[in-house]
Amino acid sequence: MDEERLRQLLEQFRSGAAPLEDVVRQLRALPFADLGFATIDHHRALRQGVPEVVLGESKTVEQIVGIARELAKSGGNVMVTRVTHEKATAAVGLFPELRHIQSASMLTLEQKEIPALGDGYVAVVTAGTSDLPVAEECAETLRMLGAAILRITDVGVAGIHRLLAKKEALESARVIIVLAGMEGALASVVGGLVSVPVISVPTSVGYGASFGGIAALLGMLTSCASGISVVNIDNGFGAAFAAARILRGTR
Amino acid sequence: MDEERLRQLLEQFRSGAAPLEDVVRQLRALPFADLGFATIDHHRALRQGVPEVVLGESKTVEQIVGIARELAKSGGNVMVTRVTHEKATAAVGLFPELRHIQSASMLTLEQKEIPALGDGYVAVVTAGTSDLPVAEECAETLRMLGAAILRITDVGVAGIHRLLAKKEALESARVIIVLAGMEGALASVVGGLVSVPVISVPTSVGYGASFGGIAALLGMLTSCASGISVVNIDNGFGAAFAAARILRGTR
Amino acid sequence: MDEERLRQLLEQFRSGAAPLEDVVRQLRALPFADLGFATIDHHRALRQGVPEVVLGESKTVEQIVGIARELAKSGGNVMVTRVTHEKATAAVGLFPELRHIQSASMLTLEQKEIPALGDGYVAVVTAGTSDLPVAEECAETLRMLGAAILRITDVGVAGIHRLLAKKEALESARVIIVLAGMEGALASVVGGLVSVPVISVPTSVGYGASFGGIAALLGMLTSCASGISVVNIDNGFGAAFAAARILRGTR
Amino acid sequence: MDEERLRQLLEQFRSGAAPLEDVVRQLRALPFADLGFATIDHHRALRQGVPEVVLGESKTVEQIVGIARELAKSGGNVMVTRVTHEKATAAVGLFPELRHIQSASMLTLEQKEIPALGDGYVAVVTAGTSDLPVAEECAETLRMLGAAILRITDVGVAGIHRLLAKKEALESARVIIVLAGMEGALASVVGGLVSVPVISVPTSVGYGASFGGIAALLGMLTSCASGISVVNIDNGFGAAFAAARILRGTR
Amino acid sequence: MDEERLRQLLEQFRSGAAPLEDVVRQLRALPFADLGFATIDHHRALRQGVPEVVLGESKTVEQIVGIARELAKSGGNVMVTRVTHEKATAAVGLFPELRHIQSASMLTLEQKEIPALGDGYVAVVTAGTSDLPVAEECAETLRMLGAAILRITDVGVAGIHRLLAKKEALESARVIIVLAGMEGALASVVGGLVSVPVISVPTSVGYGASFGGIAALLGMLTSCASGISVVNIDNGFGAAFAAARILRGTR
Amino acid sequence: MDEERLRQLLEQFRSGAAPLEDVVRQLRALPFADLGFATIDHHRALRQGVPEVVLGESKTVEQIVGIARELAKSGGNVMVTRVTHEKATAAVGLFPELRHIQSASMLTLEQKEIPALGDGYVAVVTAGTSDLPVAEECAETLRMLGAAILRITDVGVAGIHRLLAKKEALESARVIIVLAGMEGALASVVGGLVSVPVISVPTSVGYGASFGGIAALLGMLTSCASGISVVNIDNGFGAAFAAARILRGTR
Amino acid sequence: MDEERLRQLLEQFRSGAAPLEDVVRQLRALPFADLGFATIDHHRALRQGVPEVVLGESKTVEQIVGIARELAKSGGNVMVTRVTHEKATAAVGLFPELRHIQSASMLTLEQKEIPALGDGYVAVVTAGTSDLPVAEECAETLRMLGAAILRITDVGVAGIHRLLAKKEALESARVIIVLAGMEGALASVVGGLVSVPVISVPTSVGYGASFGGIAALLGMLTSCASGISVVNIDNGFGAAFAAARILRGTR
Amino acid sequence: MDEERLRQLLEQFRSGAAPLEDVVRQLRALPFADLGFATIDHHRALRQGVPEVVLGESKTVEQIVGIARELAKSGGNVMVTRVTHEKATAAVGLFPELRHIQSASMLTLEQKEIPALGDGYVAVVTAGTSDLPVAEECAETLRMLGAAILRITDVGVAGIHRLLAKKEALESARVIIVLAGMEGALASVVGGLVSVPVISVPTSVGYGASFGGIAALLGMLTSCASGISVVNIDNGFGAAFAAARILRGTR
Repeated sequence: MDEERLRQLLEQFRSGAAPLEDVVRQLRALPFADLGFATIDHHRALRQGVPEVVLGESKTVEQIVGIARELAKSGGNVMVTRVTHEKATAAVGLFPELRHIQSASMLTLEQKEIPALGDGYVAVVTAGTSDLPVAEECAETLRMLGAAILRITDVGVAGIHRLLAKKEALESARVIIVLAGMEGALASVVGGLVSVPVISVPTSVGYGASFGGIAALLGMLTSCASGISVVNIDNGFGAAFAAARILRGTR
Repeated sequence: MDEERLRQLLEQFRSGAAPLEDVVRQLRALPFADLGFATIDHHRALRQGVPEVVLGESKTVEQIVGIARELAKSGGNVMVTRVTHEKATAAVGLFPELRHIQSASMLTLEQKEIPALGDGYVAVVTAGTSDLPVAEECAETLRMLGAAILRITDVGVAGIHRLLAKKEALESARVIIVLAGMEGALASVVGGLVSVPVISVPTSVGYGASFGGIAALLGMLTSCASGISVVNIDNGFGAAFAAARILRGTR
Repeated sequence: MDEERLRQLLEQFRSGAAPLEDVVRQLRALPFADLGFATIDHHRALRQGVPEVVLGESKTVEQIVGIARELAKSGGNVMVTRVTHEKATAAVGLFPELRHIQSASMLTLEQKEIPALGDGYVAVVTAGTSDLPVAEECAETLRMLGAAILRITDVGVAGIHRLLAKKEALESARVIIVLAGMEGALASVVGGLVSVPVISVPTSVGYGASFGGIAALLGMLTSCASGISVVNIDNGFGAAFAAARILRGTR
Repeated sequence: MDEERLRQLLEQFRSGAAPLEDVVRQLRALPFADLGFATIDHHRALRQGVPEVVLGESKTVEQIVGIARELAKSGGNVMVTRVTHEKATAAVGLFPELRHIQSASMLTLEQKEIPALGDGYVAVVTAGTSDLPVAEECAETLRMLGAAILRITDVGVAGIHRLLAKKEALESARVIIVLAGMEGALASVVGGLVSVPVISVPTSVGYGASFGGIAALLGMLTSCASGISVVNIDNGFGAAFAAARILRGTR
Repeated sequence: MDEERLRQLLEQFRSGAAPLEDVVRQLRALPFADLGFATIDHHRALRQGVPEVVLGESKTVEQIVGIARELAKSGGNVMVTRVTHEKATAAVGLFPELRHIQSASMLTLEQKEIPALGDGYVAVVTAGTSDLPVAEECAETLRMLGAAILRITDVGVAGIHRLLAKKEALESARVIIVLAGMEGALASVVGGLVSVPVISVPTSVGYGASFGGIAALLGMLTSCASGISVVNIDNGFGAAFAAARILRGTR
Repeated sequence: MDEERLRQLLEQFRSGAAPLEDVVRQLRALPFADLGFATIDHHRALRQGVPEVVLGESKTVEQIVGIARELAKSGGNVMVTRVTHEKATAAVGLFPELRHIQSASMLTLEQKEIPALGDGYVAVVTAGTSDLPVAEECAETLRMLGAAILRITDVGVAGIHRLLAKKEALESARVIIVLAGMEGALASVVGGLVSVPVISVPTSVGYGASFGGIAALLGMLTSCASGISVVNIDNGFGAAFAAARILRGTR
Repeated sequence: MDEERLRQLLEQFRSGAAPLEDVVRQLRALPFADLGFATIDHHRALRQGVPEVVLGESKTVEQIVGIARELAKSGGNVMVTRVTHEKATAAVGLFPELRHIQSASMLTLEQKEIPALGDGYVAVVTAGTSDLPVAEECAETLRMLGAAILRITDVGVAGIHRLLAKKEALESARVIIVLAGMEGALASVVGGLVSVPVISVPTSVGYGASFGGIAALLGMLTSCASGISVVNIDNGFGAAFAAARILRGTR
Repeated sequence: MDEERLRQLLEQFRSGAAPLEDVVRQLRALPFADLGFATIDHHRALRQGVPEVVLGESKTVEQIVGIARELAKSGGNVMVTRVTHEKATAAVGLFPELRHIQSASMLTLEQKEIPALGDGYVAVVTAGTSDLPVAEECAETLRMLGAAILRITDVGVAGIHRLLAKKEALESARVIIVLAGMEGALASVVGGLVSVPVISVPTSVGYGASFGGIAALLGMLTSCASGISVVNIDNGFGAAFAAARILRGTR
C-alpha cells in the first residue's frame, strides 16, 4: 500500500463507501514499508547529505554499476567500498561519473555538496604505513559524511615518544579513530592518554599469530584502557560511520 | 624530578650556578611523570566526578579493600566491578562504607555528589532477562559517571514488534547501549533503526555454539548495520565508559 | 550374491541339494547390497524425479563429465554443483547436453520432465545482493527437485521495514530458506515473524570477523528464535534438499 | 497508539475535526506494536496450544517463578527448559503447580489439554545412553507441542546393524530427530537411509577433541548425506520446535 | 669420531700409548652419530627396501632434485611427496630418472626391486571420488614400501549398503586405511564393522564448516568405534607408513 | 526376524506352503540384525575374551550399574572407563562384584580368564608422572584385552638420554603407545628411533597454550617422524584397543 | 652399560680376551645414558646451585612429596611450582622441611646456599595487581636460581606516564620480564623503550575475549617492538628460567 | 619544540623576557619528542650500527623505496624484510643501491661497516630444508646486526642422532635460535640438551593440522624444556633481534 492508496481508503471512509471496521482492519494489516518508511529514510539521507553506501566486495562490476546508477537517480551522493583496482577501473569505464579513490579502494559519486558534520575534527591515527589503506577508506568515508579530519600517522607504540608528541592534537579531537595491526596496542595507549571517544579498528597487517587481524581485534576488545570500542577488522568505513553517529549528536 | 626541582634548576640557571648546557641536558632526560601528569589526572578525576575504578576479578578481598581505602583518601568516589557475592560481603564487613550493588556485582563508595554528565539519556537496551546482570553493571557505572539512564528490557528480535514499539525512545537517546547474548542480532536491528551512536555488548548468555559470548561478539562485529561499535563480552562497565566519553563531548 | 544366486540357492534347498543348515549359514552372511538395495534406490530416484547429484568441487573436468555420462545412462536428470566457470565451460565442451547455470555455478542435464513437488512454494530469502550466488544454487536445486519458488531479495535487518513488508508472503510459504552472511541476523527475525519451517544458510559474505561465514553460522545456531535449523556455510544445495524432504511430506 | 485511539482518529477525520493530511501523517508514524501485534501473537498461542517457553539457564529461581506466574495468567501452558535439579526443586517449592520433569531438566505447567499436532510421529533417535538428557528435553518439548513420539535409542554407528534393524520405523516417521555426540556420524547414516526430514542435534557427549560438541556439530554440518539440517549443541528443545514447524504444515 | 678413529684409539690403548682413563673419558664424550648410527639406519633402509622419502612441499625444484640425486647415490629407492604438477615436470626435466606419478603428486626413483612387505593386503578405502588424490599418495607409498593393496572406492556412509557389500573384503585385510573428507563418518562405520587395525585419514574435501579437513579430523578422533587411530589431514603418505609398521610386525 | 523364524520360512518353502517369490521378497526386506549379527558379535566377544566396554562419563551411577549387570549376564568380562572416584565407590556399593581400579578411573568385572593376545608386549611409554592416570587406563585396558605390557615412565624429551637408554626395549615391543602432554614431542622422537607401530596419545597435562591437550594433539598429528598415528586426547582406552587390533593380526 | 662395565670391557680387550671387532660392536650399541650423562647433569646441577624443579599441577600430594624427598637426597635445593594452597598445606604436613611460598603457589626446599647468578638484576614488571601471582612465581624462581630482582608493579599502559617514570630502572636491567594480561600491550611499549632482552609472559588475567590469556599471548607474539620473546600463558617460572639462561652467559 | 627553541626559551628566561611561571608552564606541556628523543634514538642507531628496519609486507614498492631512501639519508644501514621476489626486483630497479638477498626475501643497504656484536656466535639451527627461508631471514638479520653465526641444518628430531652429534657446537653458542615447523619438537630437545639461551621460531612448514605454524607455535610455548622462549611464526627477523639484545649484554 502506497500513500496514494492510503488517501483513497480514507476518502472512501469519509464518503461512507468503506465502513469503519474495514478501514481499521486494513490499517492493522498494512505492511510497514508501504507507509513510506523507506522514502522517509531516503529523504533524511538527502537532507543530511548522508551518501548511499554499497559494499563492493563479493559484487560483480555489473552489480556495482547497476546499483550505483539506481541510487544515483535520487540525486544524492553514492560511495562504494572495498572495490579492487580491476573492478574499479572497469566500473569507471561503464559509469564515468564514478570517481576511483585508489588509496581507499573506493568509488564515489558526488552529485551534491557535502554539508559539514559537527564542528570539530576526527583524528585518524595509524600505527604504521601498512595501515594506510584502511585509514584511507576511513578518511574518505568521513569526508563523504562531511566530517573534518586530522591524520596522525606512524605513531605505533614501539616508539612511544612519537605518540606522546601528539597528545594535544589527540585531546582536541571530537572522536579519535585508532587503526593498528599486529598487537594493536596503540588503542590502549591512546585510550589511556585522552578522555575523548576512541573507536579502534584492528587491521589485518601482520603475519603468523596476527591471524589476519585477530590478535589486534582481541587486544582492542580486552584493552586495559576503559571505554574503548571496536569495529570489525579492516573496517575503516564502519569506524567512520560510528564517528559520524557521534558527531551528529554534537551539533 | 618534581616541579619544585624544576623551579630550583631554573633559578640556578638564572643565577648562573647552572650553565645552559647542563640545564638543556637535564631537561632532555627528565622523567615524564615527574612533571606532575599523574597529579593532573587525579585532579581532573576529582573535578569531573569521575570515580576511581577497580577491577575486582582476580583480586583478593584484602587487595580490594586495601586499594579502595587508598583511593578513598582522595575524597572522591570509588567503584569496584566484577565482585562475587561472597567477596563483596566480606569486603563490606571490613570496610562498611562500601555499598554492595548485588544486581551489578559491584561495590561503590560515594563520598561526593555525582555531577550530571551531558543533557540527554543513555538507553540501556537488553534482549532478554538473562542479560540483566551485565546491564546492571552498565547502568550502575553510568549512574556513578553521572549519566541519565533509560532501561528498555526484553526486546529481543524473536518478537520484533516489541522493539519497534520503542523506536521513538531509542531515537531520542544520546547513546544507545545494546546488550544481547546468543546471536546478538538486536544490535543490528537497533543500528538500522536509528542514527544515534550504538555501543553493543555481547553477553555470555546462551550455550553450545554461543561459546560463552563469541557468537554474539562476532555477530556484532560483522553487523550489516553501519557504524555499530563493540566492547568485550559481558563488559557492561566498558560500554558505560565509552558512552560517557561521548556524553562528555556533548556538554 | 545377486537375486539370481538367491533363487538358485532356494531351488537347491527345495530339491534337497542344499541342506537347511547350509542355507541358513549362507543367508546370515549374505552381503546387503547384493539383495538389490542400490537398485531400489535407483528406482525410487527415477520414480520421484529426484536428480542424481554430483559435488563438482575437488573433481576434475574429466571426472565430472565421466560421472555425469554414467549417471545419464539411467535416463534421469543430473545436476553438478560448485563448478567454476572454467570447469563448467570445459565440461560443456566435452558433453554438450550439459547446461551451465552460471549464476548458480551448476551444470544440469534434464532428460525427463520434473514432476511438481508439494503444492506450496519455498521462499528463498536473501539478506543482500552478495548472497545471490548461494541463493541461485539453492533455487536451481529446488527447481530440479520440482519445487515452486518465491525469491525475496535484499531484505537484511539493517532496514527492517523491507522485511516486514514481506510478512504475508513469508507466512504463506511451505518452507522458508534464509540466506545471509555477515552476522546472519535475518534468520532470527524471520524465525520470530512466522511459524513456517525455517532453514537458514550462513553465507561466506563479509570480511574480517566474518571468518568466511563462521559469524553467520554461529549466529544462526544460537538464534533466539525457536526452531530454526541450519545447514553448512554456502550450502544452498543442502537447504534446497532439506526443503524438499519437508515438501515431500506435505503431498 | 492502541486500537481505541485509531478509531477515535478515524471518527475525527470523518467528522471533519481532523484534516486528511493530519491523519496520513499520524498513520505513517504510528508504532507497529500498538496495532496489537503482541496481542495477536498471544491469541495464536492460546488457539494453537503452543506453550509459552522460558529458558531457565542464567535465570534465578525468583525470575523463573515470576515469569512463569505471569505467563500462567493467560490460562495457557508453560514450559521452562534447562533448569538444574536444585533450581527446579526450589521453584516447585514456591509455585507447586509446576511439574518437574527431572530427566529433561524441565519445569512444565499444564492448564489446558494439548491438542494433537499433525497425524504422524516424530522419531527421536539417540546414538547412546549418554545422549538421553538432551533427548528427553526434546521429547518432553514435543509432547508439550502435541506431537506423537517414537524413541529409538542406542543405535550408534559403531554397531550399524542396530540401526539398520530400525529402517522401517525411521522411514515411516514424519520427522526424524537424530541426537549424537562424539563424531555424530549417526546423522549421516540416517540421512542416507531415508528421505524424511532429518533434524540433527549435536550433543556435548564425549571428551578431548569432542570440544563440548563441536566435533559432532561440524560433522553434522558437513554431512555427506544431502539435506540434513542442524540445531545448536544440546538443543533438544530447538529440534523439537523445528519438528513442530514441519508437522504444523502437514495438517 | 668415525669408526676409523675408534679403532685407532683402541689400538693405542692396547699398545699402551693411551692410558685407560683417557680412553674412558673420550668414549664418554663421543658424539652419538659418529659411532655410525646414521650409517646403520642407512644400511637398514637398503636391506629392507624402505625408500628414502622427501617432502616436496615448501621445497624448490632445485632442492628436490639436489636431495634426490644425493639420496640416489646409495643405490636405494627414493620417493618425493606433495609435488605440484609444475614442479614435478621441471624436476623430471632436470633428473629424467625420476618418474612422475601425477595422480599421487609424487616423484619416484626405483633403482632396486621392492621386496614384498607382509603377507596380506592393505585395504585403501575412500568415501568419494574427491578423496582419490590422497588415496593415490597412500597407495603409491604402500607400493614403494612393498605392500599389497586393495582399493575400495566411493563407499561413503550416505549409501551404507555400498559399504556393507564390501564387509568380507574389509575383514580379510591386514590393515584398513579409511580416507574421508566432510564429516569423515566412514571411519566410524568401518571401525564398527571389523576388528582389523583401522588407520583413518581425514581429507580436506568439503567446504564451509569442513574447515579444510578439521571436521573430518575431529570426527575421526572422537569416533564411537573403539581403537581407530588417525593421521594428519590429507596425509596419505603417513597412513601408508603406519600400515607398513604394522605389516612389518606380521612377517 | 530371528533365526527361528528364518528356519520356519525355509521349511514352509520346502513344504510348498510358501511360494518362491514370497520367500525371495521376505529375504530381501529382512532386517539385518534379525539374522543374528548382534549375537555373532556377542559370540565373538566371548570366544576371544574381548570384554564388553562402557563409557562411564556422562552416565549416572544407576545407568552404569544397570548396563554392567545386563552385560554381565552373558558371562563375559566387563569394563567401565572414565568413572570418578565418587561414582565408582557408589557403583561398587550397589554391585560389589565390580572392582574399582582407582589409578585408571575404571571399574572391571572379571568372570572369565583372559586369554593372552599376541606373543609380544606393548610398551606403554609416558613423558612424565602427570601422564600416569591416562597410562593406567591404557594399561588396564590392555590387561583386560590380554596383552602383555612393559611400562616405561618419565622419559620426556627434555632429558633425551633417559629415552635413549631404553632404545632396545622400545625396538623389541610389538606396539608402542606413547603418552605425552605439553608439546608431545616424545612421540616424534620415539617414532624416529624405531620402526615398530607407534600409537600416540596426547594428554591434557599442561596449562596455558596446552589448551587441554590441543598442543600435544597437533604436535603428534604433524610429527616429522613418518607413520605415527594418534588417538583422542586422554584416550588411553582407545590406544589400547588400537594396539589390540594390531596384536590380533600377529597371532 | 655403566662405567664399571666399560672398564672391564677395555681390560678384556687389552688382555686379549675380547677381540677388537667385539669391542667396536659393543661400543657402537651402547646406551647413551649408561655412560653417565644423567649423573653429569646431576653434578652440574649441584655445582651451579640450579635447583631441581617439579611441576606440581596434575600431581597428587603423595607424588609431590615422594618426588621432593627423592630429589632432596642429592643435598641440593628443590622447588615445586603450581601447587594449590590445599595441596601445599598437606605436603608441608607430610614433609615439614618444605616451605610454602603462598604468594607464588610454590613449595621450596633450601639445603644449600644459593650462589649469585650474574652481576646485574632482572626487572620483573607487571601491568596490574592481578598479575602478581604469576609475578611471584617468577620472582621466587629467580631467587632460587640466584638472580637479583627489581619489582616494578602496576605500570600498565592505560597510564603510560607511570611506565615512563621507570625508564631508567628498565634500561639498567640485565633482563626484563614483562607480565601482563588483557591485551598485553605493556610488552610492546617496554620493548620499544629499551634495548635490553625482554621476555614477556601473557597472564590469564581478564575475561571475555581475553580467552584465558590468548589475547595477551597473540599480542606479545605479534608485537611491533622488535625482538621481544614470549613464554607460555602464566608461565612465570619459564620466564625466570629463560632469564637465568641469559644471566649465565653474562658471568 | 626543538632544542633550538628550548635554548631560546632559557635565554629569554635568563634575560628576564620570560617569567619563571611561563617557562615552567611551557616545559610541563612540551612534547616529548621535541626534546630530541627521536634524534637520540637515531644517534644510538648510528653509533651501534643497528640498521634501520622496514617491514616490507603490506607495503607497495613505492612505499618501500621511499622509506628506504629517507632512512638512507642518515648514512646508516637499512634492511627491508618480507619482500617478494617481484617487489624486490622492482625496488632494486628504482633504487640500485639496494641489495636483494633472495634467499632471505630481504633488501639491504650497507653504507657503513657493521661493528661486531658480542664475542661468541649465534647458532641458527633448522629442523629441515624447508625451514631455510626463515633461517636465512634470521641469519641475514644477524649479519646486519654484527653477530657471528653458525648454521646447523637439517637436524630434526626424527633422526635424533644427527642432533646429538652437534651437542658441543650447541653448548658453545652464546644464543641458540631453533627454527622448526610441523610439531616443532626440535626446540624441546635442544632446550633439554643445553643451558644456553634458546629462542625458538615456529615456521609455517607443514600442512593439515600444522595450521600454518600453529602446531609448532603451541608446541614451543608448552615445551617441557624449561626456559625456552618463542617468537612469532616465521619471524626469523624477530629471533635475530632478540638474540642481539642478549649479545649486547655480553659485551
